[in-house]
Amino acid sequence: MKPTRIILDQSEIPTHWYNIAADLKNPPAPSLGPDGQPVTPDRMLAIFPGPVLEQEMSSERWIPIPEEVRRVYALWRPSPLCRAERLEQLLGTPAKIFYKYEGVSPAGSHKPNSAVPQAYLNKIAGTKRLVTETGAGQWGSSLSFAGQMFGLPVRVFMVKVSYGQKPYRRLMMQTWGGEVIPSPSPLTATGRRLLAENPDNPGSLAIAISEAVEEAVGDAGTKYALGSVLNHVLLHQTVIGLEAKKQFEKIGEYPDMIFAPCGGGCNFAGVTFPFLGDAAAGDKRAQKIRHVAVEPTSCPTLTKGVYAYDFGDESGFTPLMKMYTLGHDFMPPGIHAGGLRYHGDSPLVSQLYHEGLIEAVAVPQVATFEAGVMFARAEGIIPAPESAHAIRACIDEALRCKETGEPKTLFFNLSGHGHFDMAAYESYFAGKLEDFAYPEEAIRASMEKLPKVG
Amino acid sequence: MKPTRIILDQSEIPTHWYNIAADLKNPPAPSLGPDGQPVTPDRMLAIFPGPVLEQEMSSERWIPIPEEVRRVYALWRPSPLCRAERLEQLLGTPAKIFYKYEGVSPAGSHKPNSAVPQAYLNKIAGTKRLVTETGAGQWGSSLSFAGQMFGLPVRVFMVKVSYGQKPYRRLMMQTWGGEVIPSPSPLTATGRRLLAENPDNPGSLAIAISEAVEEAVGDAGTKYALGSVLNHVLLHQTVIGLEAKKQFEKIGEYPDMIFAPCGGGCNFAGVTFPFLGDAAAGDKRAQKIRHVAVEPTSCPTLTKGVYAYDFGDESGFTPLMKMYTLGHDFMPPGIHAGGLRYHGDSPLVSQLYHEGLIEAVAVPQVATFEAGVMFARAEGIIPAPESAHAIRACIDEALRCKETGEPKTLFFNLSGHGHFDMAAYESYFAGKLEDFAYPEEAIRASMEKLPKVG
Repeated sequence: MKPTRIILDQSEIPTHWYNIAADLKNPPAPSLGPDGQPVTPDRMLAIFPGPVLEQEMSSERWIPIPEEVRRVYALWRPSPLCRAERLEQLLGTPAKIFYKYEGVSPAGSHKPNSAVPQAYLNKIAGTKRLVTETGAGQWGSSLSFAGQMFGLPVRVFMVKVSYGQKPYRRLMMQTWGGEVIPSPSPLTATGRRLLAENPDNPGSLAIAISEAVEEAVGDAGTKYALGSVLNHVLLHQTVIGLEAKKQFEKIGEYPDMIFAPCGGGCNFAGVTFPFLGDAAAGDKRAQKIRHVAVEPTSCPTLTKGVYAYDFGDESGFTPLMKMYTLGHDFMPPGIHAGGLRYHGDSPLVSQLYHEGLIEAVAVPQVATFEAGVMFARAEGIIPAPESAHAIRACIDEALRCKETGEPKTLFFNLSGHGHFDMAAYESYFAGKLEDFAYPEEAIRASMEKLPKVG
Repeated sequence: MKPTRIILDQSEIPTHWYNIAADLKNPPAPSLGPDGQPVTPDRMLAIFPGPVLEQEMSSERWIPIPEEVRRVYALWRPSPLCRAERLEQLLGTPAKIFYKYEGVSPAGSHKPNSAVPQAYLNKIAGTKRLVTETGAGQWGSSLSFAGQMFGLPVRVFMVKVSYGQKPYRRLMMQTWGGEVIPSPSPLTATGRRLLAENPDNPGSLAIAISEAVEEAVGDAGTKYALGSVLNHVLLHQTVIGLEAKKQFEKIGEYPDMIFAPCGGGCNFAGVTFPFLGDAAAGDKRAQKIRHVAVEPTSCPTLTKGVYAYDFGDESGFTPLMKMYTLGHDFMPPGIHAGGLRYHGDSPLVSQLYHEGLIEAVAVPQVATFEAGVMFARAEGIIPAPESAHAIRACIDEALRCKETGEPKTLFFNLSGHGHFDMAAYESYFAGKLEDFAYPEEAIRASMEKLPKVG
């Protein structure tokens, strides 16, 4: 039997994260404060601990993974690299299809790859308590798990409407000891103000961020943790690509194209950056890889956005970051891939796209579920709606290969399973899923409100 | 870093199942028909295909696993053997705790270990369509997945009340192409009769079995598949213990005690039978292992039942089997571990218990959830309520070791994850879980109705 699941030994869990900041062609654009000047570290120290900020600002190429973090990674890492032979046969493609499966983590996605080091770095910095926000619950459950691993209490502000609609994700957080607060809440000034205006405020990710940041700023022992976008989060995710490289090496294969879903950019970065690092170091094979960020047509940040300074959140609390954006007050249609409903993209991914080192493609919602079901029936695993975006783009390429006869090696990141997204599959089977029209008007309107800096 | 997850290569997936029938001290008691005479194979051929019956009746020690089945197993097998170091530390026990994690399968439990070969054996026997029943949905989803692997349509009669209450398991079946019918249904004579009597009949596992068997009997191309109790199902599950033996060997460890949840008996058999086989072959170490079947106090088949001939189902459709039973019309209290709510136990497990080769212990519901949460917080994985029974018994033993100072090696089967059981965890956190009193009256009443044969 030819191997179809390539497993590494625990001793092969990477010892260092790869920091692409060391290999950028151009210096990254600094984040700017409200005064239009680069943000100073001391302002950031109010919400992030020193060791996290050090990583955020570092230009060292290799950053050691603390042994304590590797020991927690060992609960599920190295994750398998799999050959999707049954899917290849179903498609009748000459292409080889591989995927890295991040759904094996306790929380069921790649998010713990960063939640665990963030919890650890906070612990050693003397943080007493972590606070964060969550929408659908992926990040909140990952941080609850990570906090539990290091004995650090975690409070999660969960968008109130999700708190009601996604009780299982909430319970997952509670099982790991996380304290889950429906947001807006009476615990913060922001929450109290909004509840006074409207006791039935359903909440939003922007509001939940505000509450979490307010708590972190107001208490020296409390720090904030973010699940995507920032440099240190992308850094932590590079374990995915670093493992994949070793796994491909073991079987003598190498990808021609890499696909990953792209919302804030962290799982795309995680799988592609180590290969981009090889390309920067002069590896000819790596230079030929096409890296494809896959986003929803209803939130087409890279494919339709502009490269400009914008806020990371709707309310304008964050520093201004140079990134591809649809405008910080753009509200994407309610697709089920909640993790891809973000108006911007991480500054690092945005810069690479701007420099032409990576590509992007947008796919519509119904077609992603069609691909997700096709994958589940061929390979067994039911993918998260976010992950199904990468599957769709990969299948489309495999079908192109079928037409041209090219035996390409395609590789995608299966960022998580869909066990907590079955309601979305229900809508798909019931024929109730929408392909939202490209929200041209809304995007134009929000673009007009881009801050005039940078 | 000392290894805490022992992974085998795909090439180490077992090539044969171990059949304990070859090593029994006494010949197994035959199943009896309504006439009190041993059931003949031709009666069974109406509902099971020849290759399945051959395995059911076989006394060969080793039965080859078809290559086609091993290729599907390879989607998730070999499953990991893990050392629960963080749990050991939490308990402060000198015991070593290991677990085999079967939740890595697509359906999230050990059930596909038998669903896949059953689908394959039906396929090669020319079966056109499979039909089965499901309660909470574990078996129905496993068979839907398995049918999809071999292009065999699967119809699942799902207890109507579960159909409504467990939409996510139902959707999982549909994602794999399974056809899910709320039972009682208008598709069978049994269903029509019951619906005529009461259109709001909530259904039961016994009714769903009747509908499935009726369909299989009535159509030559349709066969029935059962998810536990029978010899061939237990046989297929032995891949668990066979892999575990290799994994222990790799790290130079060996279990003193093995714990597994026990409902129909298939996952208990799967993990213990290969070790019992070594014991039968004279292996001194294997002879010292204590094998502990863990059942709920509210359905204490082994610990409180009698060893007698009884029906496998409530309605008396099945042959009479010699087994530990609480009486076939005993209705266990509504605990969340639905997979352990069975009045009987597999004949093979029952015989071994009767012969004193294995032990049994019963644990109450609230304590199992307490153990499940403790495990999740230490090791990350949220266990299924069934699996939490084994965890409870294992933790209790680890705590005894703490008192006595014995450095025992404890091993349990983590038969599945709890992603589709979060509502049960919700009840636990809300303090709403009950410890049902031992249903003494109900058991006495149903025991009085035991058939007078054998």
